[in-house]
Amino acid sequence: MNSLDCIFRPHSIAVIGASSRRQTIGREILHNLIDYEFNGKIFPVNPKAGVIHSIKAYSTILDVPDAVDMAIIAVPKHSVAEVAEQCGEKGVKGLVVISAGFREVGGEGIKLEEELLRVVKKHGMRMVGPNCFGVVNTDPDIRLNGTFGKARPKPGNISFISQSGALGEAILNFADQLTLGFSMFCSIGNKADISSNDLLSYWEHDDKTKIVLAYLENFGNPVKFTKIAREVTRLKPVIAVKSGRTTQGARAASSHTGSLAGADVGADALFAQCGVMRTTSTEELYDVAMALNTQPVPKGNRVVIVSNAGGPGILATDALVSLGMDVAPLPEKIKKEIHSFLSPEVSLHNPIDLVAGARGKEFGLALEAVSKGDYYDTVIPIFVQPITIDEIDVAQAIIDAKKKTDKPFLCCFMGVGFRSRGMDMLMQNGIPVYIFPEAIAKALKTIDGYRQYLQRKETKTPTFKVDKTRVEKIVARYVASNEGSIVGQDAVDILTAYGIPAATYIIASSPADAALAAEKAGYPVVMKLNTPQILHKTEAKAVRVDIRSEKELRAQYNDLKKHVGTLKKGEEFSVAIQEMVPKGVETVIGMTYDPAFGPLIMFGLGGIYVEIMKDVSFKIPPITRDRVDDMIKELKSYPLLTGFRGTDKVDLEILKEALLRVSQLVTDFDQFAEIDINPFIVSGNKKNCKAVDARFILKKNETK
Amino acid sequence: MNSLDCIFRPHSIAVIGASSRRQTIGREILHNLIDYEFNGKIFPVNPKAGVIHSIKAYSTILDVPDAVDMAIIAVPKHSVAEVAEQCGEKGVKGLVVISAGFREVGGEGIKLEEELLRVVKKHGMRMVGPNCFGVVNTDPDIRLNGTFGKARPKPGNISFISQSGALGEAILNFADQLTLGFSMFCSIGNKADISSNDLLSYWEHDDKTKIVLAYLENFGNPVKFTKIAREVTRLKPVIAVKSGRTTQGARAASSHTGSLAGADVGADALFAQCGVMRTTSTEELYDVAMALNTQPVPKGNRVVIVSNAGGPGILATDALVSLGMDVAPLPEKIKKEIHSFLSPEVSLHNPIDLVAGARGKEFGLALEAVSKGDYYDTVIPIFVQPITIDEIDVAQAIIDAKKKTDKPFLCCFMGVGFRSRGMDMLMQNGIPVYIFPEAIAKALKTIDGYRQYLQRKETKTPTFKVDKTRVEKIVARYVASNEGSIVGQDAVDILTAYGIPAATYIIASSPADAALAAEKAGYPVVMKLNTPQILHKTEAKAVRVDIRSEKELRAQYNDLKKHVGTLKKGEEFSVAIQEMVPKGVETVIGMTYDPAFGPLIMFGLGGIYVEIMKDVSFKIPPITRDRVDDMIKELKSYPLLTGFRGTDKVDLEILKEALLRVSQLVTDFDQFAEIDINPFIVSGNKKNCKAVDARFILKKNETK
Repeated sequence: MNSLDCIFRPHSIAVIGASSRRQTIGREILHNLIDYEFNGKIFPVNPKAGVIHSIKAYSTILDVPDAVDMAIIAVPKHSVAEVAEQCGEKGVKGLVVISAGFREVGGEGIKLEEELLRVVKKHGMRMVGPNCFGVVNTDPDIRLNGTFGKARPKPGNISFISQSGALGEAILNFADQLTLGFSMFCSIGNKADISSNDLLSYWEHDDKTKIVLAYLENFGNPVKFTKIAREVTRLKPVIAVKSGRTTQGARAASSHTGSLAGADVGADALFAQCGVMRTTSTEELYDVAMALNTQPVPKGNRVVIVSNAGGPGILATDALVSLGMDVAPLPEKIKKEIHSFLSPEVSLHNPIDLVAGARGKEFGLALEAVSKGDYYDTVIPIFVQPITIDEIDVAQAIIDAKKKTDKPFLCCFMGVGFRSRGMDMLMQNGIPVYIFPEAIAKALKTIDGYRQYLQRKETKTPTFKVDKTRVEKIVARYVASNEGSIVGQDAVDILTAYGIPAATYIIASSPADAALAAEKAGYPVVMKLNTPQILHKTEAKAVRVDIRSEKELRAQYNDLKKHVGTLKKGEEFSVAIQEMVPKGVETVIGMTYDPAFGPLIMFGLGGIYVEIMKDVSFKIPPITRDRVDDMIKELKSYPLLTGFRGTDKVDLEILKEALLRVSQLVTDFDQFAEIDINPFIVSGNKKNCKAVDARFILKKNETK
Repeated sequence: MNSLDCIFRPHSIAVIGASSRRQTIGREILHNLIDYEFNGKIFPVNPKAGVIHSIKAYSTILDVPDAVDMAIIAVPKHSVAEVAEQCGEKGVKGLVVISAGFREVGGEGIKLEEELLRVVKKHGMRMVGPNCFGVVNTDPDIRLNGTFGKARPKPGNISFISQSGALGEAILNFADQLTLGFSMFCSIGNKADISSNDLLSYWEHDDKTKIVLAYLENFGNPVKFTKIAREVTRLKPVIAVKSGRTTQGARAASSHTGSLAGADVGADALFAQCGVMRTTSTEELYDVAMALNTQPVPKGNRVVIVSNAGGPGILATDALVSLGMDVAPLPEKIKKEIHSFLSPEVSLHNPIDLVAGARGKEFGLALEAVSKGDYYDTVIPIFVQPITIDEIDVAQAIIDAKKKTDKPFLCCFMGVGFRSRGMDMLMQNGIPVYIFPEAIAKALKTIDGYRQYLQRKETKTPTFKVDKTRVEKIVARYVASNEGSIVGQDAVDILTAYGIPAATYIIASSPADAALAAEKAGYPVVMKLNTPQILHKTEAKAVRVDIRSEKELRAQYNDLKKHVGTLKKGEEFSVAIQEMVPKGVETVIGMTYDPAFGPLIMFGLGGIYVEIMKDVSFKIPPITRDRVDDMIKELKSYPLLTGFRGTDKVDLEILKEALLRVSQLVTDFDQFAEIDINPFIVSGNKKNCKAVDARFILKKNETK
């Protein structure tokens, strides 16, 4: 059972570590519970017992005569496990551990946390924390404020996960000023037991929760997060700020893919693949939440602006257009309608400038006109107060116009400061108001990404018939021999086993063997020095291409041997003979294992595009056919695949299938740290689309 | 004389169109002047005379018995010129014309404005407006509030130009809430006479003005703006929001350069070249202004964060690092110092997390420790209020720590809402406080651009000896014959005249002529069909390369003739013979004329880099040697010029000189709408760095 009712819907709460001393956490928690009028029994627990905050206190929870559903623990770290044990004995179902000094401080703290978790599991309890700021449920039947901050969250439809207590409190406080109401709040702290995944699942089925906000620093289980978030975002918007870069530089960037996967690529890919709106700042988190708290997701990206001043209208347009939103001209029909009540002198564009004399009446008529029909998806009224105009009159007109349409209204009142009577009136009537027009544009852009996610078709991940056993054997062999990197013949074998087309690759250590190999591969062939040490073989002049006959082959063999000179001790001179794949577009298919997100699949065009232009796209496997489409089309260099200046359109199907097969490979095998298939040559001729070189790097712990 | 004292430092003001009727502009202006206690005489003027707002009024300004320095005009548009004429007769020196209905409405309005300007010029007056919101000078000797809004700007060191009245008022109002004080304010309206350039020059020498803010929609004279802004930004920061895109699509994008110059490229290039900080939103305008209003420009980009909470510290770090700022680890020396007073349990990184228990004392000691020595350039204290900590205590500690250092402090108080006592205290003590840590990061990044501008060396624009007459003749010939596009021989001639190396180009209309030409150019040669109609000659298979002998040349000539088939009536078959420039890196040098900004010089790498990757850089000529350096290094594909994977490092000097010579060409000739030198081949061999093809498109009005 995943229900977290034991935390969020208790009938009785023990506050262990309750205190009556001012400015202590134990006092604040008790005070907040009482002040928020918790709809159940509260039992303060403190070794000194007596009376705390006018309520009878007990020395230990075991002394409490009634049943206790949930306990909030704020005692010194060394006592937490013991207190939790008592809770278990008492039959408590949920713990909220405020106490700090656990995993977050390392060393002894890690042990303390493990011990605590053991106790929790033993008794079948659930736990928030340790090292957290508490929990809130605004439901009038519950009225739970189990935090130690000043915030008194108002009831509403937002539920909020915070991985930082301080930030959680800051966000609750600020939200109050924006009249944003909450359903539940959970500061997850070290999330030893209850994680953001648990909360997402819980809130998925909570009717009061219409929006989920999250401040996250890392993902415990990204695969699970993806699965759960996908389900939740189909029903309700999830908006997240994710901070905390993975330790840059800590990852050995020995391959292209590895070095290209920037610190944040994983989080971006993850959120995009499960429809979570990611904002780049806390401010934008509010801006998006404010919009979706009362307004529906727009049906498209067409925006109309109705303003009484030129400047702010232009600023909004600039911001919208630069973010790719559509600020299309007014259709004649709307122009005509607006001209019927506006001075014909006013020239009508989008943004509509009603000029400074516009009162509520003109605003109302214009807003009604643009809301009708299927011309726009979102309406942005912008009002800059002229001294001669009553803002209440305008606010009322906006409210009335909104009542007549389903389209979202995002309003801007400029120059009245942070708050004004008109803004308050709009917000009380469920119309979000912003101080800056640019903030609306950014929020809309983020929401538009969610709209596209909701509207896109979702295909299944295909499963190909592959030779998994063959790969298992190869990997096992490398692990056993403690070799970290699979190249050459074995690398080609892995590809082949998974149905990824690859150029024939045969090792030869004599001119005669080479000739046989070439015969097998078919002339023309390529001859490469067979030494894993030299990574970029072209630079080392150890690659001979377009060898067309046995004679030429033997000559090149001898020349290469001479060119390489003395080899390291124990190394034998050998070459790899490969069929020469006809020219095409060089692409790179790769995978890098991100410690936080697991495998990330990469695609890019070869050489300069990947290495200098950093024109790559990443997805988290397993990927579907549609996501592979996105992956390819996201590239700036995509036109090179569809035929550019006389080059042929390449066979995109082969490419997509190769990516899907790589996805299957990294889903089947978690031993790879990095994969580089470089180049994977594609052209218009399906037969000539092949991997020419590949490299698999095993995770360190696999090869010890 | 450029002094605008007649506008901003008058001793007596006439308010023409003054009124006592509430909610009229004529009343508000008079009221504001009185309410702000203008330090001089005010004369209301209204046909009805009598008494207005307790002051004796006159029917016309000519009836005023005293001298009048400045007049604020708020009468119907058709009376403005007449009233201005009377002002001229009266000896008024400055006009502020509030009345609207001029150029901004088009048609008759344009004529009215021209008439008004004629009157102003005739009498040697200066004028702000028409269609403006008024002017402010907070100097206690003047106390001029000649606007009709609610704002009562506080004295301070910011002067502010607004091209939108509404936005100007909005910004003044909001600034007040941020405790930003102003020196002067000018709503420039239609800027028929006084422009932002005039104001910049005026404020350059105004001691009270330490920062200039500007909201701009367009530039009347970008060249003049650049010149003036360069001088001003050496002395004081200029921060601008520029809105309003040039009409996209209106520009015929017939060449690469033209289609690449996005709508905003000109404004970006302009601001960057004169050290003006451009912000992308009004909000950021405040954020930057708030920082520079009291804090110096940091000496470098190294930032240290001192916080009492993990989350916000990480958010700040993320934002700073993603913007390219340096959040370097703490040096051991500072770590040691901080550990001497902090629990050794606290692990010290940058951001420093003092944890929730930190009081003023710990904040103060940590801030002092990080401010010492030459480790960091900017200090960011972040405070999220725990219930147990007194924010005043922390604010005081920040103020005290700041007193001991010259380094800028940008503070964040999170979760206390828009304002709190601690925030107020900090701001009153000249320390900027932000609500969101990400806002600090953005502002710092913008300021860092200004720092780099100030620190960079500024070389002169070189002048090369060129054959200007030769180009004049060619251009004149095309203008006379009404031909819009100069290609082929003439294009090469223009390049050669300006010392830009170009491959020899000779026209031939018989095999014999072709042979002579090839002899002159030197084998191997390239033969191209000589028809301006076929732009991308390679695609039309009308280019024959690497012709090594006369025999081959004659054969190719005949083959090409056959291949081309029948020509249009009047067209004669001819070819161009060109020396074959050895392989190298293909670059594109271009110019596009932007209606708002004049010529923009472009540089990029040829083919795909320019066309698909859009990897180009733009500068406004004339450019200096250092800006040419920037132009080349700004490209993502720059590594291809310095030797990548075995390719040679190209001769950058030749390339830079070519760009400087193009700059000189477009400075000398304003007849070109677009220039495309494509490719300009560069390699390691100076001798082989040459333009292969060029195209000059003349402005439409030049060719009628």
